[in-house]
Amino acid sequence: MKYLTEIKVRGYHADFYGHVNNARYLEFFEEDRWALLESKIDLKKWAAKGLIFLVVNINVNYRTAVAVGETLSLTTRLEKIGNKSVILKQEMVLESTKKIAADALVTFVIRNDNGAMKMEGDILAEIEKLR
Amino acid sequence: MKYLTEIKVRGYHADFYGHVNNARYLEFFEEDRWALLESKIDLKKWAAKGLIFLVVNINVNYRTAVAVGETLSLTTRLEKIGNKSVILKQEMVLESTKKIAADALVTFVIRNDNGAMKMEGDILAEIEKLR
Amino acid sequence: MKYLTEIKVRGYHADFYGHVNNARYLEFFEEDRWALLESKIDLKKWAAKGLIFLVVNINVNYRTAVAVGETLSLTTRLEKIGNKSVILKQEMVLESTKKIAADALVTFVIRNDNGAMKMEGDILAEIEKLR
Amino acid sequence: MKYLTEIKVRGYHADFYGHVNNARYLEFFEEDRWALLESKIDLKKWAAKGLIFLVVNINVNYRTAVAVGETLSLTTRLEKIGNKSVILKQEMVLESTKKIAADALVTFVIRNDNGAMKMEGDILAEIEKLR
Repeated sequence: MKYLTEIKVRGYHADFYGHVNNARYLEFFEEDRWALLESKIDLKKWAAKGLIFLVVNINVNYRTAVAVGETLSLTTRLEKIGNKSVILKQEMVLESTKKIAADALVTFVIRNDNGAMKMEGDILAEIEKLR
Repeated sequence: MKYLTEIKVRGYHADFYGHVNNARYLEFFEEDRWALLESKIDLKKWAAKGLIFLVVNINVNYRTAVAVGETLSLTTRLEKIGNKSVILKQEMVLESTKKIAADALVTFVIRNDNGAMKMEGDILAEIEKLR
Repeated sequence: MKYLTEIKVRGYHADFYGHVNNARYLEFFEEDRWALLESKIDLKKWAAKGLIFLVVNINVNYRTAVAVGETLSLTTRLEKIGNKSVILKQEMVLESTKKIAADALVTFVIRNDNGAMKMEGDILAEIEKLR
Repeated sequence: MKYLTEIKVRGYHADFYGHVNNARYLEFFEEDRWALLESKIDLKKWAAKGLIFLVVNINVNYRTAVAVGETLSLTTRLEKIGNKSVILKQEMVLESTKKIAADALVTFVIRNDNGAMKMEGDILAEIEKLR
């Protein structure tokens, strides 16, 4: 598993309790999702076709508090392709201890103007690239 | 169900896609959790005893895109008291249509220096106030 | 001076140092700018004409650290109308002590597709409403 | 001038108007300030002595709108050492065109429990390292 994103945790990432705030984790995960998508898929071609990614569910476990000064490494991989949705598995690892700080299952659909598309044909072939 | 928090969605809440960003929803939900906790529990007394709330899981469904200019109303209620954890159910409703924009199950524990506490005695009595 | 916006400072607003973070102040000020603009100007009519507000300079003084639990009251007033720009003066007051937590001069221009517009005629009349 | 920080602009950095939001710029600048401080000064030693950096003024010019997909390069350099304060000059450059997206003068003081310290002796020697 190659880490795509590395983040040095700064004081402005943490909240009053000295830990990275819950909402900020989602930004870190989003950063790594875009890094993955961009490295595998021609997003401009998708946009030109009116296709957008829409996250419909995020299920995130906060496992270890992340302190200021730590470095986080992130991974995102394809977990499951459903009928009309895709699940990504994301992990955030503390570089110092290799412990998992947080992990998340992120479910998204691909939409055009007519709604969520079936995972078949060209769309499926593109999504398979995320493996 | 009384709405504790009302948020007018501004341009800076939305992202490039014109919708409220996934991470920002968590801030809105956090705002309403604190509003609830503060209205029911003496948080200063808790802090003095070294007790902290620690969110361990958030499971959020993004149901309807939220556009700039909309007003959101939020509710938080006690869903379940477990052995050492508590689940809150949070909803974010679009004022114009009364549709649910997003809902979330948020699991937290109460910790002191020795770890997560059992839901019994004084702690349980305090948590019951969240009903 | 009527306070348009009131903000209760939460743990997620503060950073590691226990104070509201520099960047977050700008969100609080932005909130109050929109509240003012919206209360005085028909922004939909402006958007239909292709007119946008563009901030070109912010000069912010951080005067008193703002702690979690404080309530902030914000004001925004017209400071100066220039040839092609407008300066707003914004203040953020701690409710408990009435001390100024921060103040800012915010310079913006009104743009259409041809660039920044002169402050004259209809545009000037609209901006005068911000007094 | 060495660029310390590079940021790829994502959809979640931009606001409804498709540009990086005013408040987010301050986070980008803060990222680069910490990168500089950390590369030149032993911040742990400072913290152990009870010394903190406190930003008292930010004066930021927004020069060019920054679109999603752009890469930004940041620089921070020492502009001026005052009696009890220091001014840093920060620039954010669009990699594609080398245009300045934004620049800022950031004034900070070094505080201990007795207030802002004079720029002399050890403190001054440390600050001189930022040149």
